Amino acid sequence: MDNTYQPQQLLARSEKRHRARMLISCPDRPGIVAAVSHFLYEHGANIIQSDQYSMDPGGGMFFIRFEFDLNDLERELPVLQEDFARVSDRFEMKWSIFRASRKKRLAVFVSKEDHCLLELLWQWQAGDLEADIAMVISNHPDMGELVKSFGIPFHHIPVKADAKAEAEKQQLEAVTGKVDLIVLARYMQIISPKFIEQFPNRIINIHHSFLPAFVGGKPYAQAYQRGVKIIGATAHYVTEELDGGPIIEQDVQRVSHRDDVDNLKRIGRTIERVVLARAVKWHIEDRLLVHQNKTVVFN
Amino acid sequence: MDNTYQPQQLLARSEKRHRARMLISCPDRPGIVAAVSHFLYEHGANIIQSDQYSMDPGGGMFFIRFEFDLNDLERELPVLQEDFARVSDRFEMKWSIFRASRKKRLAVFVSKEDHCLLELLWQWQAGDLEADIAMVISNHPDMGELVKSFGIPFHHIPVKADAKAEAEKQQLEAVTGKVDLIVLARYMQIISPKFIEQFPNRIINIHHSFLPAFVGGKPYAQAYQRGVKIIGATAHYVTEELDGGPIIEQDVQRVSHRDDVDNLKRIGRTIERVVLARAVKWHIEDRLLVHQNKTVVFN
Amino acid sequence: MDNTYQPQQLLARSEKRHRARMLISCPDRPGIVAAVSHFLYEHGANIIQSDQYSMDPGGGMFFIRFEFDLNDLERELPVLQEDFARVSDRFEMKWSIFRASRKKRLAVFVSKEDHCLLELLWQWQAGDLEADIAMVISNHPDMGELVKSFGIPFHHIPVKADAKAEAEKQQLEAVTGKVDLIVLARYMQIISPKFIEQFPNRIINIHHSFLPAFVGGKPYAQAYQRGVKIIGATAHYVTEELDGGPIIEQDVQRVSHRDDVDNLKRIGRTIERVVLARAVKWHIEDRLLVHQNKTVVFN
Amino acid sequence: MDNTYQPQQLLARSEKRHRARMLISCPDRPGIVAAVSHFLYEHGANIIQSDQYSMDPGGGMFFIRFEFDLNDLERELPVLQEDFARVSDRFEMKWSIFRASRKKRLAVFVSKEDHCLLELLWQWQAGDLEADIAMVISNHPDMGELVKSFGIPFHHIPVKADAKAEAEKQQLEAVTGKVDLIVLARYMQIISPKFIEQFPNRIINIHHSFLPAFVGGKPYAQAYQRGVKIIGATAHYVTEELDGGPIIEQDVQRVSHRDDVDNLKRIGRTIERVVLARAVKWHIEDRLLVHQNKTVVFN
Repeated sequence: MDNTYQPQQLLARSEKRHRARMLISCPDRPGIVAAVSHFLYEHGANIIQSDQYSMDPGGGMFFIRFEFDLNDLERELPVLQEDFARVSDRFEMKWSIFRASRKKRLAVFVSKEDHCLLELLWQWQAGDLEADIAMVISNHPDMGELVKSFGIPFHHIPVKADAKAEAEKQQLEAVTGKVDLIVLARYMQIISPKFIEQFPNRIINIHHSFLPAFVGGKPYAQAYQRGVKIIGATAHYVTEELDGGPIIEQDVQRVSHRDDVDNLKRIGRTIERVVLARAVKWHIEDRLLVHQNKTVVFN
Repeated sequence: MDNTYQPQQLLARSEKRHRARMLISCPDRPGIVAAVSHFLYEHGANIIQSDQYSMDPGGGMFFIRFEFDLNDLERELPVLQEDFARVSDRFEMKWSIFRASRKKRLAVFVSKEDHCLLELLWQWQAGDLEADIAMVISNHPDMGELVKSFGIPFHHIPVKADAKAEAEKQQLEAVTGKVDLIVLARYMQIISPKFIEQFPNRIINIHHSFLPAFVGGKPYAQAYQRGVKIIGATAHYVTEELDGGPIIEQDVQRVSHRDDVDNLKRIGRTIERVVLARAVKWHIEDRLLVHQNKTVVFN
Repeated sequence: MDNTYQPQQLLARSEKRHRARMLISCPDRPGIVAAVSHFLYEHGANIIQSDQYSMDPGGGMFFIRFEFDLNDLERELPVLQEDFARVSDRFEMKWSIFRASRKKRLAVFVSKEDHCLLELLWQWQAGDLEADIAMVISNHPDMGELVKSFGIPFHHIPVKADAKAEAEKQQLEAVTGKVDLIVLARYMQIISPKFIEQFPNRIINIHHSFLPAFVGGKPYAQAYQRGVKIIGATAHYVTEELDGGPIIEQDVQRVSHRDDVDNLKRIGRTIERVVLARAVKWHIEDRLLVHQNKTVVFN
Repeated sequence: MDNTYQPQQLLARSEKRHRARMLISCPDRPGIVAAVSHFLYEHGANIIQSDQYSMDPGGGMFFIRFEFDLNDLERELPVLQEDFARVSDRFEMKWSIFRASRKKRLAVFVSKEDHCLLELLWQWQAGDLEADIAMVISNHPDMGELVKSFGIPFHHIPVKADAKAEAEKQQLEAVTGKVDLIVLARYMQIISPKFIEQFPNRIINIHHSFLPAFVGGKPYAQAYQRGVKIIGATAHYVTEELDGGPIIEQDVQRVSHRDDVDNLKRIGRTIERVVLARAVKWHIEDRLLVHQNKTVVFN
């Protein structure tokens, strides 16, 4: 590592030690905001930001995100969490609290295309991605040196057509208990349902089309064939249905008849890496809630 | 009116009779969200949406918008407003409450270009602009028939170079006490400071450039001259400084060396009308707060 | 017409009397540009603009558009067209020449949604759409007064479930020989193959989704259901395959989980009208070539 | 270099050995396209693409770009260039011809921000930037190791306030005769007129605002102060006037009141690197012509 590029980890812009984030889903009814904000106030927490979304005020689901500061967070948080039961029981809430200073650990899965991984590494070293990249796993050895030059462990786990289960077993061993989020950064293998159920709404994939257009393989060739005038990319949580999971973020760019498939790929690379990085950023900042195969994005 | 086009005023999608919106600005400190949401809950109000913005959690300004339903709003609101004094005093709040069913009344000022006025009329007749267009005022007679065909009063108030004060006096007479918002829909006359102070943050202008680029006259000619690759439009509240008031919304479109000034104008027209309509919509839905020549947009 | 709004038909910005446009498709091989541009020069034509596209220089199709000025165009054009046979035969060209001053005649088909029709009418009256709107045909009477107030003939041709053929017969009688282009401006009926073959690549439809996503009915409901973060609209030539014809133009806008189906429709309306108007504009300016279900757009 | 990341230089998608590009500016008059295309045809060149722009057909400037294939280009080109004099004299043309296989050599100037440099390096290693990065020059040593890990020479030339002329002298020695284009990739020093005149229209700068808004220093702080709703970046050729040279490319992104200056910088970084990379790509593909402080972009 002595003669390679050192990531210039920026110091957090503001002191994050006392910052926590809370995500809540529950059936909608009067008094939720009042109850939670009053609860937080009673416990000495100062609400920095709150976002809420009511699917249908007449009786749907209600989603809320609070960001708050609490002195001596490490010691106070367990108390606050225990006390919160009386609020959450009353409103039948599903909820979680995250400490902002406790960085999420990522495993990035790649194959041969490097642009999405590079974007994550660049944003990480620039201090824009507040996570730990715990490891990179690839079915090809190509990116090993690059990854190691960033001081990140690299696991080469080949995936052979007749031994996929074995490869997944190795992957699971590598990640279980060690990562909070798996990012498929143009990883070109199907993940099995068994693997997915270990990481519900914790695997983010980038699909190189504007879903639901062009599901499956070779989306740029499909886009060229159809003659679309705009191409896109989609970051989504992985579910059992191929390219069918909850969409987190999408973006697009204009193309023309002059753009052949290679050009679409080239243009698409920039869309893919930006879209994936945004989705990962929102996940690690606890801005995403999933309900019925759709995401609520509090950004 | 019998043989002219009837605006198809859509019914409100949901019952708005009991809906109110509250806008608050105050110095930031702990407990604001808790206090207000608890207050609303106590008074039987059900919070439908809340948005907040903390300029600087360490001690800046705090802005919040609540949208809530309250049974028997018409009778209960005065009580709620009176009671709120104890909360607002405690936190030194500036605040307002608006009933959603009480449509704001607009005066639209135009000169000879009709596209921005037409967009407002179209959105209004489509039921997308929940306001009453109380009158259109123009320094030219050209659009009189069009405006009247929508059943809207039209005032032709010529503005002569040597009698501007007299024209403004007539305008003021027409609007005072009769409108909540003045929209300058490509109105090509300068408004005097005296007029502006009657409508603080209640006059919205559309400027046909991406401000602060190309302040003043002939912005498309300036844009052509400079060779920009993107043009834009800016909706802002009118202040004494020409094109210098708080920006509400901006949008842009790509252009090329092939676009001459006429083309820039043509392309710009679509940007202008969309940007102005968005800004007006946000104002009439009470989504805008102004602080130190900048807007907070809760949309 | 005396008391209704007069469209302010702008004078053409430049004298169009001598302007012509030429569209050519042929197998690619050396010498095409040289041959055509030399031919035009010999005949006294001054090339104002040329655009070309070579699918595959190694042996695909070649497309070219010339815009040129020719003195005394009306008299000279027949000569030029006759002489061009020797060039076109040599290169196996499919070609057409259009006089810019000869405005194309449009029939606009509508049902109950008026926004796309209104956009076309506005652009037409602003002088931005250099066409004659020869008639509006609708299966509902609702827009009759509006259309007539612009001085445009309106045909109400009801389409009953058990008498579609009869309705199409009436439509064909109305348009045959009288229009150059049919614009389906949110016309909610399927057009029969028999009708379509009378107007090959001369029927433009606006589909209210980002094709090929959400083919068929209720695309905004489908988009809401899938939880997309961007919605779009697509203008395409109509072919026998539903929503499957050559795409002319697409555009999109960002949405969020907060946007319900009604909101998506509202946002979508602005995309639809802008996209359709662009596609129509390109068609009437002879900027579109179709090859194998895709468009070449020389804009 | 043995254990560092190897740029995966892709093979050119099509054989570029026989490809050349021609850029011409001249006063507009009839026969230019015919004369040049006929000349190329006579010399056995096959036109692959042509673009032209006529500022004012009635008598302005005319710009044209041809891309063509010519067998045995290396031997034939000198002949073709010599013969072209008779065409260029007749039409008073300024013109140049470039061989596509002859990659342009770049010097990239940087200070402490690495994102623009990194983008160029990634695009270069992905084979998307058909140039040789001949050297990187910086007034700080920080990026030395990174640059060398790509196998690219790095010159650390400190710029002291009292010895700017000396630093420029060293820079000129490093680049003169060795590079075709200088890219200021967030290089935070003013370049002297004397330096600029050595590289007319061959120095590209990225300015971190949507010019002409926010000329000069700290544009993100200026943008925050003004409360704009969209920020941008501008790539332009460097002239003596600060941030006043011909604009090559611009792009923008939406921001909100929530984005503080640090956030604007973070968002802006992605705009800057994409905009700069596009401008550099167009320059090295000979797609840019400059006329009266504006660019013609044939892309």
